Amino acid sequence: MPNKPGPRIQELRITPIAIVDPPLLNAAGLHAPYALRTIVELVTDDGISGISEIPGTRDTDLALEAARPLLLGKDVFHLNEIQRVLTAQFGTETTAERGLTPWDQRKLVHVFSAIEVACLDVIGKVTGRPVVDLLGGQLRDRVPFSAYLFYKYEGAGGPLAFGTDPAAQGWPAARQAAALDPAGIVAQARAMCAEFGFQSIKLKGGVFEPAQEVAAMIALREAFGSEVPLRIDPNALWTVETAIRYGRELEPILEYLEDPVRGQENMAAVRQVLKTPLATNMCTTSFGDMPSSLARGSEDIILSDHHFWGGLRASMTLAGICQTFGRGLSMHSNSHLGISLAAMVHLGAALPEVPYALDTHYPWQSDEVVRGGRFRFEDGAVAVPTEPGLGVELDREALARLHRNYLACGLTKRDDEVEMRKVVPGWTFQAVRW
Amino acid sequence: MPNKPGPRIQELRITPIAIVDPPLLNAAGLHAPYALRTIVELVTDDGISGISEIPGTRDTDLALEAARPLLLGKDVFHLNEIQRVLTAQFGTETTAERGLTPWDQRKLVHVFSAIEVACLDVIGKVTGRPVVDLLGGQLRDRVPFSAYLFYKYEGAGGPLAFGTDPAAQGWPAARQAAALDPAGIVAQARAMCAEFGFQSIKLKGGVFEPAQEVAAMIALREAFGSEVPLRIDPNALWTVETAIRYGRELEPILEYLEDPVRGQENMAAVRQVLKTPLATNMCTTSFGDMPSSLARGSEDIILSDHHFWGGLRASMTLAGICQTFGRGLSMHSNSHLGISLAAMVHLGAALPEVPYALDTHYPWQSDEVVRGGRFRFEDGAVAVPTEPGLGVELDREALARLHRNYLACGLTKRDDEVEMRKVVPGWTFQAVRW
Repeated sequence: MPNKPGPRIQELRITPIAIVDPPLLNAAGLHAPYALRTIVELVTDDGISGISEIPGTRDTDLALEAARPLLLGKDVFHLNEIQRVLTAQFGTETTAERGLTPWDQRKLVHVFSAIEVACLDVIGKVTGRPVVDLLGGQLRDRVPFSAYLFYKYEGAGGPLAFGTDPAAQGWPAARQAAALDPAGIVAQARAMCAEFGFQSIKLKGGVFEPAQEVAAMIALREAFGSEVPLRIDPNALWTVETAIRYGRELEPILEYLEDPVRGQENMAAVRQVLKTPLATNMCTTSFGDMPSSLARGSEDIILSDHHFWGGLRASMTLAGICQTFGRGLSMHSNSHLGISLAAMVHLGAALPEVPYALDTHYPWQSDEVVRGGRFRFEDGAVAVPTEPGLGVELDREALARLHRNYLACGLTKRDDEVEMRKVVPGWTFQAVRW
Repeated sequence: MPNKPGPRIQELRITPIAIVDPPLLNAAGLHAPYALRTIVELVTDDGISGISEIPGTRDTDLALEAARPLLLGKDVFHLNEIQRVLTAQFGTETTAERGLTPWDQRKLVHVFSAIEVACLDVIGKVTGRPVVDLLGGQLRDRVPFSAYLFYKYEGAGGPLAFGTDPAAQGWPAARQAAALDPAGIVAQARAMCAEFGFQSIKLKGGVFEPAQEVAAMIALREAFGSEVPLRIDPNALWTVETAIRYGRELEPILEYLEDPVRGQENMAAVRQVLKTPLATNMCTTSFGDMPSSLARGSEDIILSDHHFWGGLRASMTLAGICQTFGRGLSMHSNSHLGISLAAMVHLGAALPEVPYALDTHYPWQSDEVVRGGRFRFEDGAVAVPTEPGLGVELDREALARLHRNYLACGLTKRDDEVEMRKVVPGWTFQAVRW
């Protein structure tokens, strides 16, 4: 009895969308009123649809378009073969190709991640299993996330970018309020934790002088006590000297310190001095970077991200490498909606260990592109979907509306520097600032 | 729509079998007239059967029995969870637990491999896909194997252990003939390659003084020319000095040198001197051994074996590690039948690269336990099964007969030293001999 071939990819739909994003500050400047995502939908020859979501830029969309002829007709189970043809098309990429900004726009990993997750969604549907079961099955039924705090200007993004709804209370109000000092950060943390139940907290740093950001961390510790793990991510803007000086001040209160400095050599220099574990999604960002990370001893914790490591199965391989070589694993995030969140939760449920709550920007978003509305968090955790595939379905009306947003907003790539200059004329990004 | 749970493991059948094995010589002595294998069959609550085959010893069978209560009721897709409970039961094992003999009898890896492969067989059947599609899909439709030569006494094993069928010609005759010198090895290679079409050749060494085994390799080179890659495996019986001395003689003709010495430190010392790549299935045999293997630079090529590395998915992770850290990957074998061969072929088809033809003892076996008889080799390669699951089904009559062999032969574990003493009284195994 020969095996029935397929299902095969018959159609590839690439839909850029723009989602409302608050004026969040970071090392590269300021979030625009809209963040870009790209929604990918595969349709198979037997009419089954699989979806995925990746960070959006015009270049990635063009790369997906260029990949289409390589993908049409491929069996959705043949992920190794799809990866091989995409690698031949785009070439492998390490941190060297990643660039200096806090986010990652490499083509191969984004394109393959988009296709792989959509194929796994199809495979889950045709086999009647949730995606986590295609990764070896779940080891936990809820995946914990961390509060992700940002310095920010007033406003909640989108058309309201710089306006505040005076009637808003709780997290809606805090999402609109400015947070530009330690007191603002503590207020934001209280509102976010009250709404989502997060039990650990991360601050996106690299915005103000290190002394103020350290003061914010100390204020968080005073407000939340030692039971709530704290992290800060200066996005590689500190010098080694600064990282050591302020890292020592933070040593008693940090769970881990994320990318204090730029590059593995600098991370290794900091790691030799500090007792606090160092985490990265900027200095070690690909399998090709792992040998030198281990040889240099530059990081304790690798922040996986299925969008940047080439999909969910590659992220499981990364977990195996981290387990084998005694490194911790956690998860990085960008502004995202529920399709990415679902994929992150399936992966988080299959990982051998989740010692650190995962990052997510999701509370900062107010849009959604999946049916049934936004995911719920309980005690900071998201329940693992049990439906076949990712367990989320496209809300086509929302998709159309968010695509119109994309067309209307005029953005084609993320550029936080341009956005920052609208507020602070002449502001420039510096790869190392303090 | 909540996900339908299961299929769940309802029954676990453990059947030790004894298969005819010729009097093959190796570092630990002599193969007994029968080799032991254990056939595992899972039956799910909806009546689907999945099978696997592992090296047989009474201790492994008892470990499988002990694991039964942990396994009954488990969802076959929940492989991560099954691995977790088995790891809790048996503990992790590195080369330190492996012992000195050329084969591996660690419990966790054998038990989990048996269960994982049988579960993947079930998953393949319920999803209608060959097992290779559960590993990301095939990258090749035929998997190449190497001729695996042995010094041997006359006879083909089993009841005929020391008899020769005077009518046999070709490979049947060569399988019966003695091969105790270079000319005998060359004759064996010619017959085996003629029958199976192998395009590379491995000699199991560690039997005679290194000078004779080196002479056999040189004779093979003269007989087959430089187009046929050659390997020798002294099973860690050489000293560093011996390995360097004879390794230098073999340098111009070897594809790789397998386990010339015992332990990573000794391998590293040899590797610093020789240009020939070193391979291992004795010095680095677990994920726990990989960091020191890489740090010491002890081996170029890791010989995977899904029976010893904890299954097919773990073998894919090992492949990812080897790719990430610039190590080659090939595959080790023991005496085995078609269920193991099918699993090896599915894995071999999914591996990112197969730069070296895989090992198999299969030509030395004459029994089979799967329906339809023995696998065919064409040009030394086996076609990847396309049926759902492993693509092999138990021949229950053959299974019963081979189980009766097991009961009749009285063997409960492999002991090549005892067997060797029947021929050479007083012979003792030495972990390092020359």
